[in-house]
Amino acid sequence: MLARYAQAVLARDVDAFVALYVDDLLVFDMWGSWSLRGIDAWRDMAKSWFGSLGDERVVVRFDDVGGTVAGDLAFGHAILTYAAHDADGTVLRSLANRVTLGLRRIDGDWKIAHEHSSAPIDHATKQAILRR
Amino acid sequence: MLARYAQAVLARDVDAFVALYVDDLLVFDMWGSWSLRGIDAWRDMAKSWFGSLGDERVVVRFDDVGGTVAGDLAFGHAILTYAAHDADGTVLRSLANRVTLGLRRIDGDWKIAHEHSSAPIDHATKQAILRR
Repeated sequence: MLARYAQAVLARDVDAFVALYVDDLLVFDMWGSWSLRGIDAWRDMAKSWFGSLGDERVVVRFDDVGGTVAGDLAFGHAILTYAAHDADGTVLRSLANRVTLGLRRIDGDWKIAHEHSSAPIDHATKQAILRR
Repeated sequence: MLARYAQAVLARDVDAFVALYVDDLLVFDMWGSWSLRGIDAWRDMAKSWFGSLGDERVVVRFDDVGGTVAGDLAFGHAILTYAAHDADGTVLRSLANRVTLGLRRIDGDWKIAHEHSSAPIDHATKQAILRR
């Protein structure tokens, strides 16, 4: 699932990206809002994100991947690093986050039903810690 | 599970709190560190948290609770509000977060195997948004 996610982000492919999710997904996203529900809102987010990249490509790396499966349900967790590359392949910037996924298998196909991404917060300054 | 969590926090009961978790839990906590593994580290966190409260009591409220169960596995999500009350019951301060739980049933008893808590981050300032 994470490989498919990384591939869709690298390709800036909105359709491939939203195909990873169930229609009634619930996202606790790292940025801006408390929660976001439904594939239409998530498609808008992806369009806006990929549309903002211009010629840049985002390479997603995943570390510390783990999780548990039982029947048609699973949850998993990982540290993701998003590195923005320019057209020449130079890394412009990168940031890390923690992601938790709740997955459901529907008609044999695993989909993300719930996604929670975040960075830890420094207690004194209330600032997000964006590098690991 | 959330009711038991709230009860343990209200009672500042470290043993009742850690009893909710599996021994090899993985936590993506909102504060300070990227991840934390194992019941010993989590017990230290609870001791430190409850020990810092003095006469204060923390009332945990949960909203927007949802989740999915299959056999001995489940995941769930909610918005938690932590309100610190002084000895007279006056609310001193409160903050909200999003929590995702990955649960496993072991010998008939549900335990938290994975917990992810966070606040959204304001994109411009990189500050955590601590009120909903």
